[in-house]
This record gives sequence, C-alpha cells and structure tokens, in this order.
Amino acid sequence: MTEKDKDFMRRAIVLAQNGIDSNAGGPFGAVVVKDDKIIAEGCNRVTSTNDPTAHAEVVAIRNACRKLNSFQLDDCSIYTSCEPCPMCLGAIYWARPKQVFFAATRRDAAIIGFDDQFIYEEIAKDFDGRQLKIVNLMRDEALIVFQNWANKPDKTEY
Amino acid sequence: MTEKDKDFMRRAIVLAQNGIDSNAGGPFGAVVVKDDKIIAEGCNRVTSTNDPTAHAEVVAIRNACRKLNSFQLDDCSIYTSCEPCPMCLGAIYWARPKQVFFAATRRDAAIIGFDDQFIYEEIAKDFDGRQLKIVNLMRDEALIVFQNWANKPDKTEY
Repeated sequence: MTEKDKDFMRRAIVLAQNGIDSNAGGPFGAVVVKDDKIIAEGCNRVTSTNDPTAHAEVVAIRNACRKLNSFQLDDCSIYTSCEPCPMCLGAIYWARPKQVFFAATRRDAAIIGFDDQFIYEEIAKDFDGRQLKIVNLMRDEALIVFQNWANKPDKTEY
Repeated sequence: MTEKDKDFMRRAIVLAQNGIDSNAGGPFGAVVVKDDKIIAEGCNRVTSTNDPTAHAEVVAIRNACRKLNSFQLDDCSIYTSCEPCPMCLGAIYWARPKQVFFAATRRDAAIIGFDDQFIYEEIAKDFDGRQLKIVNLMRDEALIVFQNWANKPDKTEY
C-alpha cells in the first residue's frame, strides 16, 4: 500500500461525505484510477435519482467507461469507501479492473442499516432457501436465442 | 405459473432476440410487470453503450424506477430471459420486487461464453481465494462517515 493509494481512498471517503451532505444518497464514494490519476468519481445517488443501481462503484464505473469509450476498465484500479455489495462486486467483475481497494466492510454497512451482508447471504443460497421468490420457466425458448447468439458471426463479445 | 406469466416471459425473450439483431449487446431481455401490465422493458446494452452494468435486468429496473418515480419496485414482478448474474441479482434485491421469473440458467449462459457462473463462484470466496485482487485499507476513516450518516437527522433511508 502506497501514499498514493491512501490519497485515492481519502478522495473516495470525501466523496462519501459530500454525498450525504448534498443528500445525493447513502454514505458511499468511489474513484477509478488509471496511470496514477483519477479518471472518474462517483457517490451513491440511489435516493436522489430514484435509481437503486446508482451505488458509488456503479456510478464511478459508468463514468470511467464513458470517459474511456470502453466497456472494460483495463489496467484501472477502483477505490471505494466501503466493501462492494454483491451488485457492485458483480459490476466490478464485468468491468474487469486490475484491482480494488475498500475501506469499511459489509458488516460495518450492516450496522448502519444497509443490506449488503444480507444480500451476500441470499446470493449464496439455493433458490428454495432465499427470501426472494424466484421461479424458472420456459428455458427451452430462451435457449433458442442463446443458440442464435452462438451462431451470430458479427457479434461483439464481452 | 399462469398464461400471463408465459406472455411476459415471451416478451423478455423477444427483447433478447431483438437486442442481438440490433447489436445492442448480449442475448438477454427483461420486463418489469405491475398490476398485470408491463411497465418497463430492457435488453442488454453493454457493448453498444460502453456500460458494463447495462444488463437487461438493470436497464429494465432503471426504466421502471424512472416511470414509478421511486427507487423501489413495490409489488412488481421481473421476468428475465436468463437467471440474473450476481450484479443483477444484487440490483433486484436493492429494488425489492415481490418476485422474479427467469428462463435460461447461469450454466446455460456459461456455455455460450458469459461469466455469470464464474462470478457466482468468486463472490462466494474469501478475499484471498479470489482471482480479483481486493485490499482493505483506511477502515477507521470511512467509519467516521458512516457515523455521520447514522447521526444525520434528515436522511432518506433505502
């Protein structure tokens, strides 16, 4: 861990504080760094934009991808003021940065009322054990579209 | 499972096919239903919009929340042509619909080259066991912001 790592994390934490001061949303901030420079920032904007997906990491990832004109964050690092929830961790895997730094933990988030830990537990369960009702139907019809994708010659993979 | 459920899923599957035909992104579609009507639709738009978070479910959830002017999908159902990946399942938990229907599975998605199953496996691991490098630092400084959130009198919780 370097002084630069600490500076980037400090900025993520400042964004978290600014976010609650401006009533943007919950107490979370994130930055995306490439070549030792911040290329995008984000804070939680769930309640102010009516977007349950507008977590700090997702906002920062979207901003960074827009800036890079790419759906991949090659050679980037993400600094987030709290351990990513499963949604954000999934977004990070899809964006494929090289590394992630976080400050507070999912359990710290749970203590102040956020569902991160609960969602981690739910996602690890079989369908039957989850609180969310989730039902499988019409798999065969969806597989036809998957086969069409597999056979598509001009597709962009990701 | 009712005929209406099948109609809604059929629409999600049509959106998936339309998405690949128009080069929007991968072969995935989703709809959000409230009071037996489709209130929002989405297809995967990752590659066409350079947004790794623009999966069908996330797009449909964002559209539905915009329509309802709410960050919660109370009493809504989501129909998606494929089992939600961890990012989308996380988004669904945060949006809090009453139920989810899916067609193809995470393993079907893996067969045509998507990382859903891999990400499920990664998220279940401890930090040390993951392929993604993830590092904890400066927890104490982030906790100050969490405490400020806990003490904030005019916050909007979610």
